[in-house]
Amino acid sequence: MSLLVVGSVALDTVYTPRGELLDGLGGSAVYFSVASSIFGPVHIVGVVGNDFPKEHIEKLKMRGVDSEGLYIADGKTFRWHGKYGEDFGDPETLLTELNVFADFSPNLPRKYRDLQFVFLGNIHPKLQLQVLEQMDSPKLIAADTMNFWIERELDSFREVMKKIDVLIINELEVRMLTGVRSIFTGAKKIQQMGPSTLIVKRGAYGSFAITGEDIFVVPAYPTDNVVDPTGAGDSFAGGFMGYIASKGEITPENLHLAMVYGSLVASFDVEGFSIRNLEKLTMDKLNERLAKFRQITDF
Amino acid sequence: MSLLVVGSVALDTVYTPRGELLDGLGGSAVYFSVASSIFGPVHIVGVVGNDFPKEHIEKLKMRGVDSEGLYIADGKTFRWHGKYGEDFGDPETLLTELNVFADFSPNLPRKYRDLQFVFLGNIHPKLQLQVLEQMDSPKLIAADTMNFWIERELDSFREVMKKIDVLIINELEVRMLTGVRSIFTGAKKIQQMGPSTLIVKRGAYGSFAITGEDIFVVPAYPTDNVVDPTGAGDSFAGGFMGYIASKGEITPENLHLAMVYGSLVASFDVEGFSIRNLEKLTMDKLNERLAKFRQITDF
Repeated sequence: MSLLVVGSVALDTVYTPRGELLDGLGGSAVYFSVASSIFGPVHIVGVVGNDFPKEHIEKLKMRGVDSEGLYIADGKTFRWHGKYGEDFGDPETLLTELNVFADFSPNLPRKYRDLQFVFLGNIHPKLQLQVLEQMDSPKLIAADTMNFWIERELDSFREVMKKIDVLIINELEVRMLTGVRSIFTGAKKIQQMGPSTLIVKRGAYGSFAITGEDIFVVPAYPTDNVVDPTGAGDSFAGGFMGYIASKGEITPENLHLAMVYGSLVASFDVEGFSIRNLEKLTMDKLNERLAKFRQITDF
Repeated sequence: MSLLVVGSVALDTVYTPRGELLDGLGGSAVYFSVASSIFGPVHIVGVVGNDFPKEHIEKLKMRGVDSEGLYIADGKTFRWHGKYGEDFGDPETLLTELNVFADFSPNLPRKYRDLQFVFLGNIHPKLQLQVLEQMDSPKLIAADTMNFWIERELDSFREVMKKIDVLIINELEVRMLTGVRSIFTGAKKIQQMGPSTLIVKRGAYGSFAITGEDIFVVPAYPTDNVVDPTGAGDSFAGGFMGYIASKGEITPENLHLAMVYGSLVASFDVEGFSIRNLEKLTMDKLNERLAKFRQITDF
């Protein structure tokens, strides 16, 4: 599988109604890569400090994550502390320490340059562009972003949008980018900014894709066993891109199943702290849940 | 089709970003009955004032709605004025005039008493009980309610819950009734209060049902042509119960398709003011949208 991800690698401290975890393995590139690894190997680009536990790198390797592009810099690893309320909605950020991530300048190992599928995790759009400049000619580029970059780095982000095939964002970001309240109208407007396919994440309600003239809608897999929602969006993206990369192309059929796999992988993620559930995930467990999902959505 | 609905019949004035309509035909029993009438005749119980336009009653009759149980009382018809914002979310209520609805005491025509399928629209739970007392032995009873009754008439509403088979409510009401934030855990808790089947409406995101140990999830049909969301919930209930009543029983398969039909009928409702789209709805148009819905949700 010819898949690259660039994004954050972090030590997360999370407080949730179901417990807490101090300095757990986290970050967008971590959730993405562990989630996508169920479909095959994935190559990570990121940076950690020299305080980053070696065992975490071993964990990633065990899952087939190539960490040659994970640089170990002098200093402390990026840290994030967050607290979730009873509804497990958007967390309150208690602390963000960029540390070595503040000076991150992605420099790709030579062997990464001809990879065919690229996921630009939620980092500064200028860094997303810097990664693309180092790639030969990838077949499919997908990207994520966040409200922070839309507000402050819109020009750079517009450049990113012109170069990507798939944009994966949430409803709030669609409205911020377009100023349009109707989510479907807004999504179509974003297509005109560059990405031919737009995937809109709707949290606990699922997601939809607009691609060309077509739309595909998928609910979230229902679970009442949410423990820690951190990384759900990146796990979705990982499941999605992992499946697409394993198939080698986006067809309508692949797109639909990729979104469903993304939704299912995310449902496993939220049922455990950090990557605990993702690192144990097997294709058998995933396909068992796929069969169940088909049963509870079939009509 | 052996279907009864009790609820409000109103003259609604609505202001939406797409226009306004003064004194349009509305009310829960109206939306429900016009929506369900696509599957067969339906019998309505309600009250209007002597200012109620005769043409509205003719419209209902044209759709196969039996209005023998619609009483014309001295006084003015129930009026509601509401305004929707750009997001077409919960409207701001500008005026509620109960008028003849304030003294409504449902008294069923004799020929209604052996009807087999009953929908108790969103009215005072004591009135919902009063209707049930007049029924012989219906095969299936479904009910709706609202936050107002949960807050102020919880004891009566608990009585209602013990007598019904299906409760159709929204996420906010699930949380109010149970104090539980997890929507699936809350839904299971409500099952223990009486209704074996709980249908939870999630607005623009669709709905899910919990029935026995099973769950069924359906997204909303995506439309960017929302004009007036008034009556969406009652149209959903009408499509749902109309289909169930036409089939004569709830099986897992019927339940799934009933929820999908409910979702589709509601999507037609919101694309027009008042009942304008519902009264023109044909089985052909509905099944055309069903085919499209299958296509955009299939995996």
